[in-house]
Amino acid sequence: MIQFTPKDPDFEKRVQDSFARQKFMTFIHARLNKIEPGFCEIEIPFSENISQQHGFFHAGIIGTVADNAAGYAAYSLMSKTSSILTVEFKLNLISPADGELLIGNAHVLKYGRTLTICRSDVYSVKNGIRKLCAASQSTLIELPEHNDKRN
Amino acid sequence: MIQFTPKDPDFEKRVQDSFARQKFMTFIHARLNKIEPGFCEIEIPFSENISQQHGFFHAGIIGTVADNAAGYAAYSLMSKTSSILTVEFKLNLISPADGELLIGNAHVLKYGRTLTICRSDVYSVKNGIRKLCAASQSTLIELPEHNDKRN
Amino acid sequence: MIQFTPKDPDFEKRVQDSFARQKFMTFIHARLNKIEPGFCEIEIPFSENISQQHGFFHAGIIGTVADNAAGYAAYSLMSKTSSILTVEFKLNLISPADGELLIGNAHVLKYGRTLTICRSDVYSVKNGIRKLCAASQSTLIELPEHNDKRN
Amino acid sequence: MIQFTPKDPDFEKRVQDSFARQKFMTFIHARLNKIEPGFCEIEIPFSENISQQHGFFHAGIIGTVADNAAGYAAYSLMSKTSSILTVEFKLNLISPADGELLIGNAHVLKYGRTLTICRSDVYSVKNGIRKLCAASQSTLIELPEHNDKRN
Repeated sequence: MIQFTPKDPDFEKRVQDSFARQKFMTFIHARLNKIEPGFCEIEIPFSENISQQHGFFHAGIIGTVADNAAGYAAYSLMSKTSSILTVEFKLNLISPADGELLIGNAHVLKYGRTLTICRSDVYSVKNGIRKLCAASQSTLIELPEHNDKRN
Repeated sequence: MIQFTPKDPDFEKRVQDSFARQKFMTFIHARLNKIEPGFCEIEIPFSENISQQHGFFHAGIIGTVADNAAGYAAYSLMSKTSSILTVEFKLNLISPADGELLIGNAHVLKYGRTLTICRSDVYSVKNGIRKLCAASQSTLIELPEHNDKRN
Repeated sequence: MIQFTPKDPDFEKRVQDSFARQKFMTFIHARLNKIEPGFCEIEIPFSENISQQHGFFHAGIIGTVADNAAGYAAYSLMSKTSSILTVEFKLNLISPADGELLIGNAHVLKYGRTLTICRSDVYSVKNGIRKLCAASQSTLIELPEHNDKRN
Repeated sequence: MIQFTPKDPDFEKRVQDSFARQKFMTFIHARLNKIEPGFCEIEIPFSENISQQHGFFHAGIIGTVADNAAGYAAYSLMSKTSSILTVEFKLNLISPADGELLIGNAHVLKYGRTLTICRSDVYSVKNGIRKLCAASQSTLIELPEHNDKRN
């Protein structure tokens, strides 16, 4: 994996604050496990509330964890006065997300002046055994001088 | 749009039942607006619980509505003894999903023996004005003789 | 389809000139069929040179026509001093591209200040019968004050 | 990377034969550099014929090398009586493909009964220096008892 030097030495706190402002993360009990320059890991414990018709994690939740991990991996590298938006993401669902925990991690492939490209891997953990359940690739855009907080 | 003849005349009830079994849909107050052969529309009212850091609909929710509409558009055409899984989807976020309602609709581009391809459009509605906020393209797989209900 | 007003009244000539500078288009005998504000159609006649192992159009050629049509649909709307690059594209191959001609057309879904989103449809024509063989969705970036000609 | 055991001990020859049947590969002077179980590397030397308007490798060629490497990485694992088709691929163009050589390699993330998921990385080489210029993620389908040769 590439070694990145973050522009903002306080990137960790900035990411944690932004994550905490995402009400949806609280609603689904998502936790920010790890944030490093160009890397992020988020996990979500299983609950019936976020399941699909077979009782597994819903694909929408899998997309959420893949996209959000990518967003914060990218955001860790950005200037402290920038905000971030997802341009697009593409997610392959690889095996049923059956288990007690969902873990998504993402790393930055390229941090560009405007656009950042990330890859995410999502794992389901069942009885402690971790299995790749989804993989994604995404594009993020840095909005300079744009407050990440609510308007 | 292509005219499809569903294999199962009771496709509407079958889709509604499957939708009702998705606990995540209930949790976020999603409603199945319309189901026709090869077409589906789902809507989700705004609530703080499903918002991101700027107070808009979270990208994960936008992905959810795009993916789920595609899944049920495809499922409407399938045999009554088949189940369905999303293989992959790709979502472009086009404008901030700011509003009181999110509407996702999907139509089938190709219904194949194994794979089905769909396109989805997602709209945010603010003060009654509808605006395209996301577009996706996805691949679904039909699992013959596979119960759609929980194992 | 959305009606767009191009910033550059000479967009048609600008697109034709750029297309003519793409040596790869000449090499595979691609033709720019139609260019309108936010829309482009390109076609490529079949030849053994661009076939895959089953004797059909190669997927790389299908991706080329989808991407290039999207690029010029977007470029038609841009300022005359801008250049364009593809950020990403996602292509579904829907049926074997078996025939004497490949036609790709693309339209702009959203023309933004920095990013433009397009959808493309690719058709194979066999014995005069046109069939959808691929569908794509792509993201393009406008580079202001950037010469489209070779450096 | 995952270690795979190919079903067909003669996978290398089978891949080389299929590659040789793709006329488009010959036309653009592509070479199959390396084939291992679940891995493939293809390279293409620069020529004017495959360039875009700025004189770099055309995005269609970059997509071709990413898709083809993925296809053969997947095909290396398949039964000797199977054929393969690309279902879809998504490609991010990360930096201008400026150089004397384009190298695409792909590895299998998941080899499934019907579908296989791969990731590809594409590098441009300029004055001997290798730089990531594109990244893709793709889905392939195995067609059992289906001749890979021309009908």
